[in-house]
Amino acid sequence: MAKSLPVSPLAPTDVPEMPAIAGVRLATAAAGIRYKGRTDVLLAVMDKGTTAAGVFTKSKCPSAPVEWCRAVLKNGKAQALVVNSGNANAFTGKTGKTSTKLTGDIASKAVGCKPNEIFLASTGVIGEPLDATKFNGVLATLAESAGPDGWMDAARAIMTTDTFPKVATATVKLGKAKVTINGMAKGAGMIAPDMATMLSFIFTDAPISAPALQALLKAGVEDSFNAVTIDGDTSTSDTLLMFATGAAAAQGAPKITKASDIRLKPFVKALNVILNDLAEQVARDGEGARKLVEVVVEGATTKASARKIAMSIANSPLVKTAIAGEDANWGRVVMAVGKAGEPANRDKLSISFNGIRVAKLGARDPSYDETEVSNAMKNPKVQIKVTLGLGKGRDRVLTCDLTKEYVAINGDYRS
Amino acid sequence: MAKSLPVSPLAPTDVPEMPAIAGVRLATAAAGIRYKGRTDVLLAVMDKGTTAAGVFTKSKCPSAPVEWCRAVLKNGKAQALVVNSGNANAFTGKTGKTSTKLTGDIASKAVGCKPNEIFLASTGVIGEPLDATKFNGVLATLAESAGPDGWMDAARAIMTTDTFPKVATATVKLGKAKVTINGMAKGAGMIAPDMATMLSFIFTDAPISAPALQALLKAGVEDSFNAVTIDGDTSTSDTLLMFATGAAAAQGAPKITKASDIRLKPFVKALNVILNDLAEQVARDGEGARKLVEVVVEGATTKASARKIAMSIANSPLVKTAIAGEDANWGRVVMAVGKAGEPANRDKLSISFNGIRVAKLGARDPSYDETEVSNAMKNPKVQIKVTLGLGKGRDRVLTCDLTKEYVAINGDYRS
Repeated sequence: MAKSLPVSPLAPTDVPEMPAIAGVRLATAAAGIRYKGRTDVLLAVMDKGTTAAGVFTKSKCPSAPVEWCRAVLKNGKAQALVVNSGNANAFTGKTGKTSTKLTGDIASKAVGCKPNEIFLASTGVIGEPLDATKFNGVLATLAESAGPDGWMDAARAIMTTDTFPKVATATVKLGKAKVTINGMAKGAGMIAPDMATMLSFIFTDAPISAPALQALLKAGVEDSFNAVTIDGDTSTSDTLLMFATGAAAAQGAPKITKASDIRLKPFVKALNVILNDLAEQVARDGEGARKLVEVVVEGATTKASARKIAMSIANSPLVKTAIAGEDANWGRVVMAVGKAGEPANRDKLSISFNGIRVAKLGARDPSYDETEVSNAMKNPKVQIKVTLGLGKGRDRVLTCDLTKEYVAINGDYRS
Repeated sequence: MAKSLPVSPLAPTDVPEMPAIAGVRLATAAAGIRYKGRTDVLLAVMDKGTTAAGVFTKSKCPSAPVEWCRAVLKNGKAQALVVNSGNANAFTGKTGKTSTKLTGDIASKAVGCKPNEIFLASTGVIGEPLDATKFNGVLATLAESAGPDGWMDAARAIMTTDTFPKVATATVKLGKAKVTINGMAKGAGMIAPDMATMLSFIFTDAPISAPALQALLKAGVEDSFNAVTIDGDTSTSDTLLMFATGAAAAQGAPKITKASDIRLKPFVKALNVILNDLAEQVARDGEGARKLVEVVVEGATTKASARKIAMSIANSPLVKTAIAGEDANWGRVVMAVGKAGEPANRDKLSISFNGIRVAKLGARDPSYDETEVSNAMKNPKVQIKVTLGLGKGRDRVLTCDLTKEYVAINGDYRS
């Protein structure tokens, strides 16, 4: 976080131009939350009438901002989002609550709305008190200077150990009007399903009611952010928020009140593509990652069972270090299948690496050529496919390899 | 495995003299299972009348030798144990079964007993066929040369990535007679509760029936081997076997048929010390380990809940890399408590590192001195103590730190 890390070799090469979203204005600043001279605050101001949805960490010890968001989300309305990096305001006791309240007050005055229309997210070190007085003045200035552009700056302001900013965008038809969806996210460690020190914010000008927005977001997260793991560690601060300004209603977009509304079809498809894209970028920026790993499990008894087995493989240090060593060590994949505790029959298992089958029916595939597999493992993207041969359950999760760099980054994070 | 690794800095400095156990004879050889010129076979021959007990991996994809042992254990009698390193004979399909059968046949002829009195264990690479014909001749020679000494050689023959042999011994009274317990174990990666690529063999001359021996072993494993984790990965081959020759009956030791027999008290105590000692040695030899980590959780709602939380902490890559970096990063401990999914109240949590409280009641302990903690973290043994403040549940698990060496060892194991 203090140091600037070399950009992940898995960073996407095509970074989209981020368009403006009617009803959203952005501004960033260096408030000195932890380090001097580093952009560490993002303010997003939304027009009156903006609806909100959110999905949060399942940690039993959530951060103060997560508790704040859960409370204000009941209201379903948003006028501003304040994000800071450098300090997670997590495990900060009563100070944490005082901090979020003060930030909410400062922001609501700066923007001119009620505190329960302010959303907060913090990421960075856990357990250090967050001095919210640092937002004093800063947020008022930001509210004045906020403008429709600056999406890349916004994505950069929320980074911690991320090595590249993560954005995605799509424009689709809602009724006869064009609506836009913009998203940003930050990773990059403590990433595990349900979700991660993962912050992600999605904005759209589509006019969608808060309950409908919540339903879309909840459904979309299951196979995107919840299907990514870096290290099996779940943050106290995971936050995915979505805001819909409704500004596209002026261009004739119909007002949507139900997630099942048939007119939403292209919108839902685009939203899911964005969520998947951002989730994949998080995996691509896993701390120390050199390889993007896709684990596909098929032939399980159910999708849930396939997910558990895929996660067991994706979280196995032995599998992940083997991938780092470009070793198609399917024995360790078997181990990870076995430890998942889900139905599996050793003698029906088949395993492929990047499309090359190395094991079938519980033993080494006699046709498997070590050189061919070794070459395939040099690819920066590795797919591990496990076929269980029991049923029709299928699932897929993303992860990355476990390298010495991961250990270096995390053995030296606080200092 | 091919390379010889530097001895773990956590290796015990006091290695006990291993006495003979009446009724047990040992021999080792280099059979060229995987590498030439490396001792890789252990034969232990036991006198007629020896009883057996065993606890095995919970993997759904167990190795062929584990399936073999489970089957012969029903018989409760043992006359020989054959262990090979270099090849785990796991995920070898029908070949695996053929292999164990052939090994059982060769061993039973060499020793002069039935195949169902032979116990087998294999450790090493998974998924490669084990050529059991290599035992031909070798086991007969070993059976002839086997003697009462050579316990350290035996412990060395079963090593894979272990950097030191692991043994423990105790002599206690059973009735008025002296009985001896000897144990050996190998680790060192893929170590997780229930158990690990962990092989351990315990021998005693006490006359204890097979059912009683099984009950003692099952009870003893819970807070020893099942309370150790290196990387959360569970092997397909975990095997803990115990053999009682009964030879001490000649010196007047009473024949024990029930685990609850009051006369067993000193024996059970000594057995548990040995199991704990060996389990701790496994943690001390965790791949790449530089620090032994003891995680104590108290104040949980139950012991089982405390165990789950302790395991969540002990398996967290972020906690383990922080320890490697000598960083008392209690924020990550909070994270690991939160992700365990067990009852926890953030605002009642206290956390200590090596006796120094760094957090209390859900926030940083105001009296905590960074320099004092930093110095304490330099200790090769680190205790993380979490007090939940909810109930009386307490538990303790052992692990080690996660270093770049772990990644190096496991990124390059097969080659």
